[in-house]
Amino acid sequence: MTPAKDHNLSSFLEPRGVAVIGSMREPMGEGLTLIRNMLDFGFSGKLYPISRSNTQVLGMKAYSTVNDVSDPIDLACVITPPPTVIPIIKQCGEKRIKAVIVSTEGYAEVGSEGAAQQRQLVETAHRYGIRILGPNTLGVFNSANSLITDPYPIIRNKPLPGGIGYASQTGLLTFGVHPLKDHGYPINKIVDFGNKSDINELDLLPYLADDPSTNVICMHLEDIRDGQGFLDVASKAAAQKPVLLYKPGRSEAGAKAASSHTGSLAGDDQVYDSAFKQAGVVRLRTWQEFWEIPKTLSMQPLPKGNRIAIVTATGGGGVISMDAAAEAGLTAATFSANTVSELNRLSPRLTKNPIDVGPLMSIRQSPFGIYEDVVPVVLRDPQVDCATFICHVSPPIVTVFARLAPEISKIGKPVTVFAYGIDLAEMRESARQLEARGLPVYLDLETAVKALGIAAAYSRVRARLQKQN
Amino acid sequence: MTPAKDHNLSSFLEPRGVAVIGSMREPMGEGLTLIRNMLDFGFSGKLYPISRSNTQVLGMKAYSTVNDVSDPIDLACVITPPPTVIPIIKQCGEKRIKAVIVSTEGYAEVGSEGAAQQRQLVETAHRYGIRILGPNTLGVFNSANSLITDPYPIIRNKPLPGGIGYASQTGLLTFGVHPLKDHGYPINKIVDFGNKSDINELDLLPYLADDPSTNVICMHLEDIRDGQGFLDVASKAAAQKPVLLYKPGRSEAGAKAASSHTGSLAGDDQVYDSAFKQAGVVRLRTWQEFWEIPKTLSMQPLPKGNRIAIVTATGGGGVISMDAAAEAGLTAATFSANTVSELNRLSPRLTKNPIDVGPLMSIRQSPFGIYEDVVPVVLRDPQVDCATFICHVSPPIVTVFARLAPEISKIGKPVTVFAYGIDLAEMRESARQLEARGLPVYLDLETAVKALGIAAAYSRVRARLQKQN
Repeated sequence: MTPAKDHNLSSFLEPRGVAVIGSMREPMGEGLTLIRNMLDFGFSGKLYPISRSNTQVLGMKAYSTVNDVSDPIDLACVITPPPTVIPIIKQCGEKRIKAVIVSTEGYAEVGSEGAAQQRQLVETAHRYGIRILGPNTLGVFNSANSLITDPYPIIRNKPLPGGIGYASQTGLLTFGVHPLKDHGYPINKIVDFGNKSDINELDLLPYLADDPSTNVICMHLEDIRDGQGFLDVASKAAAQKPVLLYKPGRSEAGAKAASSHTGSLAGDDQVYDSAFKQAGVVRLRTWQEFWEIPKTLSMQPLPKGNRIAIVTATGGGGVISMDAAAEAGLTAATFSANTVSELNRLSPRLTKNPIDVGPLMSIRQSPFGIYEDVVPVVLRDPQVDCATFICHVSPPIVTVFARLAPEISKIGKPVTVFAYGIDLAEMRESARQLEARGLPVYLDLETAVKALGIAAAYSRVRARLQKQN
Repeated sequence: MTPAKDHNLSSFLEPRGVAVIGSMREPMGEGLTLIRNMLDFGFSGKLYPISRSNTQVLGMKAYSTVNDVSDPIDLACVITPPPTVIPIIKQCGEKRIKAVIVSTEGYAEVGSEGAAQQRQLVETAHRYGIRILGPNTLGVFNSANSLITDPYPIIRNKPLPGGIGYASQTGLLTFGVHPLKDHGYPINKIVDFGNKSDINELDLLPYLADDPSTNVICMHLEDIRDGQGFLDVASKAAAQKPVLLYKPGRSEAGAKAASSHTGSLAGDDQVYDSAFKQAGVVRLRTWQEFWEIPKTLSMQPLPKGNRIAIVTATGGGGVISMDAAAEAGLTAATFSANTVSELNRLSPRLTKNPIDVGPLMSIRQSPFGIYEDVVPVVLRDPQVDCATFICHVSPPIVTVFARLAPEISKIGKPVTVFAYGIDLAEMRESARQLEARGLPVYLDLETAVKALGIAAAYSRVRARLQKQN
């Protein structure tokens, strides 16, 4: 009995009660670590440590099995040796738990024997109406209830709350091994598909599409087993919010490695590429883009077109940004006569795009004030759809952009900031302050521009998909 | 009288005595700041503050004009208002100074009037046999003598010593506005061409090519005015050491912006591209590559071919790295029978490239020791030319690679490390420790692989150029 396709992921992401089944041994038992992570993040639901050897875990009552818990349990997190997993799944079935995250490793990722055990695991679960996330997964994170199911230490890495729904088929692209907090990505939910034995993109895309707190979906997939199903759910999701996809295996060597890693056919990349276009999914190309691009789409409105303006304190940066714009599908905005005349009043040297404010800064009383004069004029130009600001970050520039932020937001066109400087810690702190005011900041020039290119690409997609519906 | 072409840059980069002419006003006078930077970096030559209003500057005797200094002066750094610059140049001429860095802004970068003043400045200088760097430049840095001529505050940003010779036509790509120290780039010299009115790539390339302490040349150029001259010096330099070039203006919009920024014809990018190929110059594509790629060529030997091996703790990372390799012109190495059998003895799951050591790490007593078993076997394979190691950085992995470093160095094939983790400060500290042992570390996956692709591309170039000579 396979659970119905409309079973959504709320038991996995919004559980009221969570049972944790794994080693509770100090100092690093996986069950214990998972509970510590939950307490550190501040999970708002109820936790039930399951342990045969402890009556108490971190001050909480522990239970021998899930069936000893009298409260209802929505989700069980299992990280125990492989031979114990199926008996535990059966106990979960008897307790009428509908969602189980299996973090245990040693299944399809280690060969055909493991794959057979994995199939058996899923079959057992489905007999009880249980859905499985994993195995070989770090599980999920949800910023709304501070749920975190990672069984390895991730203390101090709780992401900032925001709108991005991330999902990945590799631990490398989830919460386990990236400094999400240090980077300040605005995150709503994260799902690690692990071996993707049961719960997969077909389940998650509709859930995230309908989730009002997720405004961008960003997914890493190594394989897509049901192409038609994917097209269906992806195009529905993409009609509602941006769906960004990072699908490695573009090259022959990459596809071969993917096939060896996930144990499934990786498929021809061109077929994927045209399927993604058809579905309205926008493709990301690199690990860095996966992490850095979504925040702009989450924090900023979509552009109505692809005409970009650059306001820069460095002429050299202006040149580089124009290459980046062209390669991201953006064109340099030509300012309207009105804008040219307003800019000309400030200085005849400010009328061309990119606008190099650098030379003027050095002769002004308040050098950074030039951004306050120029930015609103440029953004209000009907021939400008979006803008990147290039500036040396420092407390005075943060003050200037903090003042500008409400006006930028009112104009309703997306912007990004490329921040340069000589002290990384200071740059990160300034970035954090600007992002708290809704302005996405990049420490890499080309990515700051590309983020707007991806936003414009999605904007075109959405117009097409909404016309079709 | 134009100085002879064989005038080299030693007066600019290896001066014994340096005169500083600029505002000595507290707190931020440009002359004062320049001298502060020199003292902070520890310049080993002599400094002569020139000031009409001060008799002492930061505890040093100040002089009214350069002609009041009785010692010989090799270099003058000038940052004074435009009308005063030509008279100062004349005084420098009378003092027989042969090299002047003009940091003053307001010349060709601000329009045709400034361009005319700039021509006049250079003509005056040449009448005295003086070469000019700039105007509108931050000048130079040299790690050998800790010379730094930046007139703006850059305290705490002294680069680590190393082999990279950087040069750029924009301040954005020199020492003024990038956290060189935090990134730990191994730097030998930096030259900011500024407006490139006189000293340019034709002077610098032969100098850096002959400089025994520079082992990689990395240059940003917005325009090349003498194509044939460039081909000559660039191909001679490239026959000796890697010449990496970042030339924006690839797109039409970028070329237009470049032409507006530097005031010169930007030229057709395809013409540039084939000229670079002919000269043996390897082209970089992004701001990030400009900063991140050279360190691998500086710290590591060149590969003999383009076959890469990947040793990874994450299967997903292995897939991504294979795409990056293919796109960087590398192919996945096929291990020799010998290597396969040695790896097979460790585990039958380690015989394929990329080698995913992740699953084995979780079942070993000392998880990271797996790298010590695998890395030397793989690197010694005659069918492997280079390798990227993908690992979660942490003190234990630093210990393992610190032990491995001498062996890797003895084998003599280039490697890079992609380091991931959850705490940026900790990751940077681990990276610093590994780089101190000669292993280049990247916090971006694709760049770690691309660096080896660029090294392989240069290796092919050098073989061709050396055959021609």
